[in-house]
Amino acid sequence: MQAAQPPSVGMVGAGQLARMTAAAAVGLGIRFRVLAAAADESAAQVCADTVIGDYASLADVRAFAAGCDVVTFDHEHVPQEVLTALEDAGFAVHPGSAALRFAQDKLAMRTRLAALGVPCPRFEQVKTANDVAAFAERNGWPVVLKAISGGYDGRGVWVCQDSAAAAEVISHGLPLIAEEYVQFSRELAIVVARSSGGHGAAYPLVQTVQVDGICREVLAPAPDLSPAQASAAQRLGLELARDLGVLGLLAVELFETRDGLLVNELAMRPHNSGHWTIEGARTSQFEQHLRAVLNLPLGSPVLAAPSIVMANVLGGDDPDLHSRLTHVMAADPALKVHLYGKPVRPGRKVGHVTALGRDPDDNLARARRAARYLATGSEDA
Amino acid sequence: MQAAQPPSVGMVGAGQLARMTAAAAVGLGIRFRVLAAAADESAAQVCADTVIGDYASLADVRAFAAGCDVVTFDHEHVPQEVLTALEDAGFAVHPGSAALRFAQDKLAMRTRLAALGVPCPRFEQVKTANDVAAFAERNGWPVVLKAISGGYDGRGVWVCQDSAAAAEVISHGLPLIAEEYVQFSRELAIVVARSSGGHGAAYPLVQTVQVDGICREVLAPAPDLSPAQASAAQRLGLELARDLGVLGLLAVELFETRDGLLVNELAMRPHNSGHWTIEGARTSQFEQHLRAVLNLPLGSPVLAAPSIVMANVLGGDDPDLHSRLTHVMAADPALKVHLYGKPVRPGRKVGHVTALGRDPDDNLARARRAARYLATGSEDA
Repeated sequence: MQAAQPPSVGMVGAGQLARMTAAAAVGLGIRFRVLAAAADESAAQVCADTVIGDYASLADVRAFAAGCDVVTFDHEHVPQEVLTALEDAGFAVHPGSAALRFAQDKLAMRTRLAALGVPCPRFEQVKTANDVAAFAERNGWPVVLKAISGGYDGRGVWVCQDSAAAAEVISHGLPLIAEEYVQFSRELAIVVARSSGGHGAAYPLVQTVQVDGICREVLAPAPDLSPAQASAAQRLGLELARDLGVLGLLAVELFETRDGLLVNELAMRPHNSGHWTIEGARTSQFEQHLRAVLNLPLGSPVLAAPSIVMANVLGGDDPDLHSRLTHVMAADPALKVHLYGKPVRPGRKVGHVTALGRDPDDNLARARRAARYLATGSEDA
Repeated sequence: MQAAQPPSVGMVGAGQLARMTAAAAVGLGIRFRVLAAAADESAAQVCADTVIGDYASLADVRAFAAGCDVVTFDHEHVPQEVLTALEDAGFAVHPGSAALRFAQDKLAMRTRLAALGVPCPRFEQVKTANDVAAFAERNGWPVVLKAISGGYDGRGVWVCQDSAAAAEVISHGLPLIAEEYVQFSRELAIVVARSSGGHGAAYPLVQTVQVDGICREVLAPAPDLSPAQASAAQRLGLELARDLGVLGLLAVELFETRDGLLVNELAMRPHNSGHWTIEGARTSQFEQHLRAVLNLPLGSPVLAAPSIVMANVLGGDDPDLHSRLTHVMAADPALKVHLYGKPVRPGRKVGHVTALGRDPDDNLARARRAARYLATGSEDA
């Protein structure tokens, strides 16, 4: 008897998310291919099947997809016309274009979420400085202006204190929405997976610590939650995945406010707020995404430790991470280090560390110290 | 400032051990290369840097090693003359030829262990049927004949009940040793790592269940051990690694007898008795091996769950593992499955599964059921 070929997944994009997905694919015995812009990208360094091409080119993406059972993504930047052309040609694209639109287009996302009755910051499309001023009159300053598409890690987001600042952003000519500036007590995130049978699995609600729009730390589960809050957030994530028709992972970034949770951002891929799952959950988000897009049964998201803290390693001035790795390993043999193979640039995410244990404060101190030391050679902030 | 290149490890051999080491290398951010006999071998399927060549050819191994900071192994079959030539040429070979000899040559291993006073089965080199008969006269039948080199997974081992059976083995003309047939209560194994600073780290003593010389199941930690037994075995492993000059992992297979532990076999690489560490220990044996050969500080071997059971998936008659994977995942969402991408042949190790939890009996039942179902489509033995 001849065995069928194992299933194959093609991931568009070759950053660290694809790199960590490649590692998860090894155990599943599936074939895994990435579409990279260059052979030295993070995932291309470790993936046996790398195709070089342009994610915005239908010809490139189509050639890449040939022979893949499923096409999925490590970012949201593939144009809608490429996605729909792939679907029309019969490729299995997960998440599909209709769902991905809500992770690509903040106006479409806000409009849809409002229609679903999901609590969000007040928002409005703005085209002129007068539009922003009118929005501010109703909602107060500061006003948050966001590029409708293309932003990430704080890029494409401007907190404007006054009309002059808003006018400056407007002058760039980008399509924008205005959002009220939310006074949140902290930021939270929920990652869920949904497979084509409609089955869903939610990770615990986590706290994210952002500095200048970039995630610095993630505490899993989020401290000081009531069971009701925790399960309400999981329900929100699972219902959103269903209502938006997501196949694969959905990450929902949330603001915790005095009036409850507001949805900030969505992503439909493995997410920085889920990196802790590699060691901290029975099924990592990367394996879970592969299971979901392949329509395999989802894995258990149960925690592998009472508390898990992840800290991002952001590039500093000295590029030589590996010279510092040995000291971090010596100082904390139980810490898990993940380096992405990316050239170090100041502020760039070049790795993360994860600490697991009983005490969230201990874990946070361990993870923070190691991440700082890796980045800068000093344990001080 | 220009960053130094991350360190690079070349692993000779591209079976499942190299495949799982490749996955561990991703997080460390190192460069990882395998030497494969063919492009479709288990590790070659997932490793971005695969060199095709013959591990017995000095020219091939030398070309492979160029540009690697360290050369290591997923098997013991590289000839001594190739190893020593590499070392003479200045390559860092870990474990080195002097240590590896004790994993390649059972006569050298037994002789050295006897000199160290390590408890072993009684043994003797045998060249003729008369030698075997004389050995049996002193130690009784059955007599275990072992090929001095080249055996694995039960190959190269013959349990002879009488002179006629021994004569048949002798007639093959292989260099052999005779060993007494040990009446053991069970088989155990210990995996330790040793780095060039002489630092060591030991995993807990585990129980291995072998059928026809092939490992079927591993229970970590071994049930019903006294703390004294457990720590004596760890001490034995660490002392052996030191006395044999091992750099990297050392796996010691043991017989538990009424008179204590006897050393059965040695391996100096990731070992089947350590696959449970991928999810079951804070540092997997694959990461630990990389840390050790790179002279990075060793990781914590602490358990991630109270009990972990691994079961090998041995090939059955039906090669299509993936058609059965979905049922196994649906039946037990918390089970971890690892498939090796190898063509299925009856009895061949093509994957393993790991169950983690409080109760060893539960874990064993879950792992055994899933491994059998994956292999055969039935949960019966």
